[in-house]
Amino acid sequence: MDQPAKTPSPPYCAVIFSSVRNADDAAGYAAMSDRMVELARTMPGFLGVESARGPDGFGITVSYWDTEEHIRDWRAHAEHLEAQHLGRTRWYDRYTLRVCKVERARTSATEA
Amino acid sequence: MDQPAKTPSPPYCAVIFSSVRNADDAAGYAAMSDRMVELARTMPGFLGVESARGPDGFGITVSYWDTEEHIRDWRAHAEHLEAQHLGRTRWYDRYTLRVCKVERARTSATEA
Repeated sequence: MDQPAKTPSPPYCAVIFSSVRNADDAAGYAAMSDRMVELARTMPGFLGVESARGPDGFGITVSYWDTEEHIRDWRAHAEHLEAQHLGRTRWYDRYTLRVCKVERARTSATEA
Repeated sequence: MDQPAKTPSPPYCAVIFSSVRNADDAAGYAAMSDRMVELARTMPGFLGVESARGPDGFGITVSYWDTEEHIRDWRAHAEHLEAQHLGRTRWYDRYTLRVCKVERARTSATEA
């Protein structure tokens, strides 16, 4: 994954997904996580994604989108709905999801 | 750290800081990172912070604030300015910082 994501000039939208993984089903979770990134990349309005998870199980994934309508379409995608269901019932102890408008951004000179 | 952060109902603001750490000065970095969280908690308008970094060195820290003015005050705090300088010159290979307005949020039932 190319991180931090290279995104266009604001404004655009972001979904911050903060979660605590349980210790179960590492292989199944990793496969689904990879598949969701692959699928998201095919969605209209997708701008990029960043993800990090520490050894304590807490992780943050931020996906970037052109508009809130693109986020709604992604949220309602059938395969993504199945992944969300498995996340709630099998993989996550808890999570918070926030939908944002990115208003300003800057990046380190070395990345440009 | 209590993660995900318990934040009030939107709207509020978020700073998404995505960075790649180099392999240098782990102890100095960890001490400064802890100090910045401690200091941020004392700032007016601070609502919470979440942070995750994986074994590849890529990390995401999201801090939440009442208003953009509170973010500007935090950015301009003398001790934080020194930390930002050390980050640029010593600890980070590259980074991107995005300032956002959080418009909607939901959290898992098990966290409530």
